Amino acid sequence: MKTKEEWMALALDLAEATNGQTSPNPSVGAVVVKNGILLGVGTHLHAGEAHAEVHALEQAKEKAEGADIYVTLEPCAHFGKTPPCAELIIQRKLKKVYIGCVDPNPKVAGKGIQLLRDAGIEVEVGILEERARNVNQKFFHYMSKKLPYVTLKAAMTLDGKTATSTGDSKWITSEEARVDVHRERHSHDAILVGKNTVLLDNPSLTTRLPQGGKNPIRIILDSKLSLTGELNILDKSAPTWIVTSETSRVEAFRKNYPHIKVIHMPGDKLVIRDVLERLYEEGVQSIYVEGGGTVHASFLQAKLFDQCHWYIAPKLLGGVDARSVVGGISPQWMSEATYVCIDSVEKIGPDIKIIAKRKEEA
Amino acid sequence: MKTKEEWMALALDLAEATNGQTSPNPSVGAVVVKNGILLGVGTHLHAGEAHAEVHALEQAKEKAEGADIYVTLEPCAHFGKTPPCAELIIQRKLKKVYIGCVDPNPKVAGKGIQLLRDAGIEVEVGILEERARNVNQKFFHYMSKKLPYVTLKAAMTLDGKTATSTGDSKWITSEEARVDVHRERHSHDAILVGKNTVLLDNPSLTTRLPQGGKNPIRIILDSKLSLTGELNILDKSAPTWIVTSETSRVEAFRKNYPHIKVIHMPGDKLVIRDVLERLYEEGVQSIYVEGGGTVHASFLQAKLFDQCHWYIAPKLLGGVDARSVVGGISPQWMSEATYVCIDSVEKIGPDIKIIAKRKEEA
Repeated sequence: MKTKEEWMALALDLAEATNGQTSPNPSVGAVVVKNGILLGVGTHLHAGEAHAEVHALEQAKEKAEGADIYVTLEPCAHFGKTPPCAELIIQRKLKKVYIGCVDPNPKVAGKGIQLLRDAGIEVEVGILEERARNVNQKFFHYMSKKLPYVTLKAAMTLDGKTATSTGDSKWITSEEARVDVHRERHSHDAILVGKNTVLLDNPSLTTRLPQGGKNPIRIILDSKLSLTGELNILDKSAPTWIVTSETSRVEAFRKNYPHIKVIHMPGDKLVIRDVLERLYEEGVQSIYVEGGGTVHASFLQAKLFDQCHWYIAPKLLGGVDARSVVGGISPQWMSEATYVCIDSVEKIGPDIKIIAKRKEEA
Repeated sequence: MKTKEEWMALALDLAEATNGQTSPNPSVGAVVVKNGILLGVGTHLHAGEAHAEVHALEQAKEKAEGADIYVTLEPCAHFGKTPPCAELIIQRKLKKVYIGCVDPNPKVAGKGIQLLRDAGIEVEVGILEERARNVNQKFFHYMSKKLPYVTLKAAMTLDGKTATSTGDSKWITSEEARVDVHRERHSHDAILVGKNTVLLDNPSLTTRLPQGGKNPIRIILDSKLSLTGELNILDKSAPTWIVTSETSRVEAFRKNYPHIKVIHMPGDKLVIRDVLERLYEEGVQSIYVEGGGTVHASFLQAKLFDQCHWYIAPKLLGGVDARSVVGGISPQWMSEATYVCIDSVEKIGPDIKIIAKRKEEA
């Protein structure tokens, strides 16, 4: 006989299994239980398709009446692409609803819970709440901050270099670390790079895993819209957006690359906050910034990043002229550095992966 | 009733307790045991004083006859500042000698074991051998490579910077990390820095721990012997050596700083290999290189370092003009980077300490 935390943990396992595939919707899992017997399991698979509760209740059929349902996120109260799940739970006469955490989406945000309680259904909120929020960390951030969740990613030597003075960078890290990067790409809505990285490395920026995976949107910052030719990133293998300034000439580019979306920003320079606000409006919930150093520096300077994923290879390059993981201009004083806190340190093959989260300013 | 490994572990604990205080001698521990009863313990405390075996046998008194002795390092066979311990063990009629590892010192190197066996005493070598060698890692390196053991140390931001463009570096890492640095200073024979670090930071480079500690020799690379004035490192608080080229003028310096040893190297530039060979001859077994980036680069380029101790603070500075942990000139290709392997990754306060060891060339 499982405890309520154990049933919620099962629902969270189901939610986590869809990491990267539900955007713009959150990952949600649900299980239906009566007298300690599991009657149905469900998880939300793709935006526009059935919610977790619907799948779980379908499996439970008429046995759902009088049963309990565990849902990792508050059931929705609004008509979106599917009817409200709170209504369905009421119709199917469930006895009690256990909820991981409240939905931050203003269209829900407690209304689902209210609907259930008004209908006389018992509701308990906050089972494994922290884990329930972490499953949808990027979604929560997007909803509450009204900005995409930004991860700065870099592969570097132990002395903080990402390429030699000539730009050579193949390869810094191990095959194992590069596989991990592809997993991270899968779990983000978009990858963002600067024009120089495109010209230097000619990357594809697709998700290439033996077991498959989703390609995120490829976003390139190119204020002058100067990219052209046979670059991998300009092909049709994944959705591609170029963010450029309003002064750049777009006609020829649109003709040559009709499959690429061009986003014009006001002014002749790209301002990171403006770009992120625009990408928020476009529904991009999470961005994996793959550099280079100048792009990282502009996110750092704007203090508009949420975490870093640093892959550190066990080698030393040396060179004041080598490319540094964060470029730009140095502050005058060490006290002007931006504080982060170390979230995890992990060995991946011979390399180290450090995840650090930005500290909120006081 | 302890096993032989457990008795050796006790002897090793005694040896490790003298870390940093026995140079140029190794750290050695010994215990005397008969029928499972501990009869005496000893550890070598300071060069020139009694060896571990002598202390342990003194405690055991006449009970030593017929007892076993556990020694972490092969008993010496030669007259140094004290008479040979192997002879003492024979005189005191021990029954069996358990040895952690063979002494790499060519004056011993198996001769102690031979003496014991020739006298009819049973000898077993290699109890906890790896740990026994690690206790005296620097000593073993010094004896076998005929060079000091070199540790490159740096404190840096998460993006590999050691100071801002203006040279400000106070403080990068936490108090906890700085205490750890003082512990490392205590366990090395010498600290080495470049002239620029002296001018930039005016460091004392002494061991400052609430519970005391030994000051290593402060070694400064200054090819032109240009340091002067009220610098902390030129005071009398610790032995100080300046390594300079043969072309530098030494008379005025010697007059102003008679307490400082000046080492002249041939040529007008300092060559790291030559400097290390000279420091080997001076009996320096281990060097803690505290930078800056240019000095680290010259050790890296010469491939004459054995490990790195990197203290990484959870902050990002940014800036291609900020000081990099390893300066110098970048190689042309990433494949020319110098490989190390990660020995340990540890959280120290909010910071990370990475220890990486250089891989021997194939």
